[in-house]
Amino acid sequence: MPADLRFPPGTVIGILGGGQLGRMTALAAARLGYRCHIYCPEADCPAAQVTPLSTAAAYDDEAALTAFAAQVDLVTFEFENVPFQAAQILAPLVPLRPGAEVLRICQNRVREKDFCRSANVPTADYVALSGPQDLAAAVKRIGGPAVLKTAEMGYDGKGQVSVRPDSDLEEAWQVMASHGDGPAILEAFVDFRMEISVIVARGLDGTCRAFPAVENQHKNHILDQTIAPARVDDAIAHRAEAVARHLAQEIDLLGLLAVEMFVTGEDEVLVNELAPRPHNSGHWTLDACSTSQFEQFVRAITGLPLGEVEPLGPAVMKNLIGDEVDRWPELLAEPGARLHLYGKAEARPGRKMGHVTRLSPKG
Amino acid sequence: MPADLRFPPGTVIGILGGGQLGRMTALAAARLGYRCHIYCPEADCPAAQVTPLSTAAAYDDEAALTAFAAQVDLVTFEFENVPFQAAQILAPLVPLRPGAEVLRICQNRVREKDFCRSANVPTADYVALSGPQDLAAAVKRIGGPAVLKTAEMGYDGKGQVSVRPDSDLEEAWQVMASHGDGPAILEAFVDFRMEISVIVARGLDGTCRAFPAVENQHKNHILDQTIAPARVDDAIAHRAEAVARHLAQEIDLLGLLAVEMFVTGEDEVLVNELAPRPHNSGHWTLDACSTSQFEQFVRAITGLPLGEVEPLGPAVMKNLIGDEVDRWPELLAEPGARLHLYGKAEARPGRKMGHVTRLSPKG
Repeated sequence: MPADLRFPPGTVIGILGGGQLGRMTALAAARLGYRCHIYCPEADCPAAQVTPLSTAAAYDDEAALTAFAAQVDLVTFEFENVPFQAAQILAPLVPLRPGAEVLRICQNRVREKDFCRSANVPTADYVALSGPQDLAAAVKRIGGPAVLKTAEMGYDGKGQVSVRPDSDLEEAWQVMASHGDGPAILEAFVDFRMEISVIVARGLDGTCRAFPAVENQHKNHILDQTIAPARVDDAIAHRAEAVARHLAQEIDLLGLLAVEMFVTGEDEVLVNELAPRPHNSGHWTLDACSTSQFEQFVRAITGLPLGEVEPLGPAVMKNLIGDEVDRWPELLAEPGARLHLYGKAEARPGRKMGHVTRLSPKG
Repeated sequence: MPADLRFPPGTVIGILGGGQLGRMTALAAARLGYRCHIYCPEADCPAAQVTPLSTAAAYDDEAALTAFAAQVDLVTFEFENVPFQAAQILAPLVPLRPGAEVLRICQNRVREKDFCRSANVPTADYVALSGPQDLAAAVKRIGGPAVLKTAEMGYDGKGQVSVRPDSDLEEAWQVMASHGDGPAILEAFVDFRMEISVIVARGLDGTCRAFPAVENQHKNHILDQTIAPARVDDAIAHRAEAVARHLAQEIDLLGLLAVEMFVTGEDEVLVNELAPRPHNSGHWTLDACSTSQFEQFVRAITGLPLGEVEPLGPAVMKNLIGDEVDRWPELLAEPGARLHLYGKAEARPGRKMGHVTRLSPKG
């Protein structure tokens, strides 16, 4: 694939969002000679620590967004919960990659699942809810244990509550809605045996490259460990990778898409969530692949040829959540452990402070 | 080795010099959660593109140096030709690592060779020259082909001229001095069969770790390729690594030392130059070692435990000099080639624009 020379090294990539995903993207971009301009409501966010170019302003600040657009050559985002309105303001001013429609789909669980269904990709059963008045009928329709989730803005298990046919539905709605009002979704509970994910890149010419399927282990609804590759049969891994590539094509992706999936006891693979950006479950690629997910993201959005996705070997990525980061001195002294810290000052509970990747782990 | 907690991640590392060595150091520092503040006479230098903290001021600007010292937790340098006066201004204000004495020795070829001699490490024969009046006697003393070099500020072959017993010595001095006036050195010409280098780190507790000896090939006096490991007998490689460790001890290093050496036809190993910082011949470690030279440098100066230096496999690093950088599109498309670009806008002849590392090369 020939390189698109519209955005060569030296180009300024605008990134909406300033967390660790933006930080690691900016570091990968710098290696290839790109510059990044971080747009983030908080000053001194992790990503703004690694570039001289940043704007600290709200996502609905039209003047700041317009000024930002004028200072960058293209725009991307490091999380999909950027208000859609920000994308609408930017899209006429500067190339937005992936495009606004990808953002619109991926920031809403109902649209995400409708999209999967339209692409003939299996998900859990679900019912869209416009308000609490829809819940009782939906519970009846699902007919068994289910999960009530906000349609938008939920992450790390926030805005989710388990619901059974005999639950107090009013209370369930209130618990869920305390994390974000608005429409919701009721999803059938999936008694999965494993959570896996696939990160796929799609370039300008439609080429797709998927990193191998990996296995994700959560603690308190937050990703704790990623085991690469996932300990599943090749057939399941290949099916998951094919699903990710298919979704990337169907959504007309230009960039990166992380596809979270459940593997059921019956070896079904059900899509759970989509994230059109680098993903926590891809951090292991920084140390175990010749192209990391962050470099692949930069290559995809700037129109460069995609890089190799073949791992150098198996790896385990462990998130350092909250005060787990205090283990940094021993991790630095551990042979072969590769430590990454995100520049966050305060180790609040549940906060992702860094991660460590171990190659060729034993056992 | 327990970590020194005086400079934990989050600390601000001041770096004198803003070239690609500072840039790649800042990127490695960011991975570990450190911040870097770049001090460089040119604004928008390669290193200042990867951090919000930079000062564009002259190396003799005492007010700017003092303000810089107040904004950082420790100071290092990415090249040894920083005026010694800058180190003298900073040293009382903020920890300087490696220390001023290391800088003083390494920025002068005569002091460098005197130091090697005092450490019983072989070099080419040499004579210190305080001015042109000393040259004739020195040529006589060396007694064969020799190289006249400026004692200070020479790099990439600049300020060097070959001298034979029958040369026009006045002209030779003028050619040499056009690249920097002041004292000089006359070194016996070494008919080497290979140039090698070893990069060694020394930590707070005196632990030394040397990367394997590598082979350096120059074009027009500029490093063109590094082949890792060097294609020499193990005995020679081990001798070179032992020399580097010994020099690091003797100079009381806290940081990184690159030791350039000649291997003669008689398998002698003669030290040619010292550089107390990351070195072009160590760029391959970014892609072929679990700890890169840049991370090792950060670990050493901040008092962290040193990282592993065992390579994952053989590698070849090719510098992209001047318009060689125009090959970036094909290099990005080459499987396994790892491209690094330095953010320099203008590809002037002889300018190091980037490099590419290939792992497990054939042949």
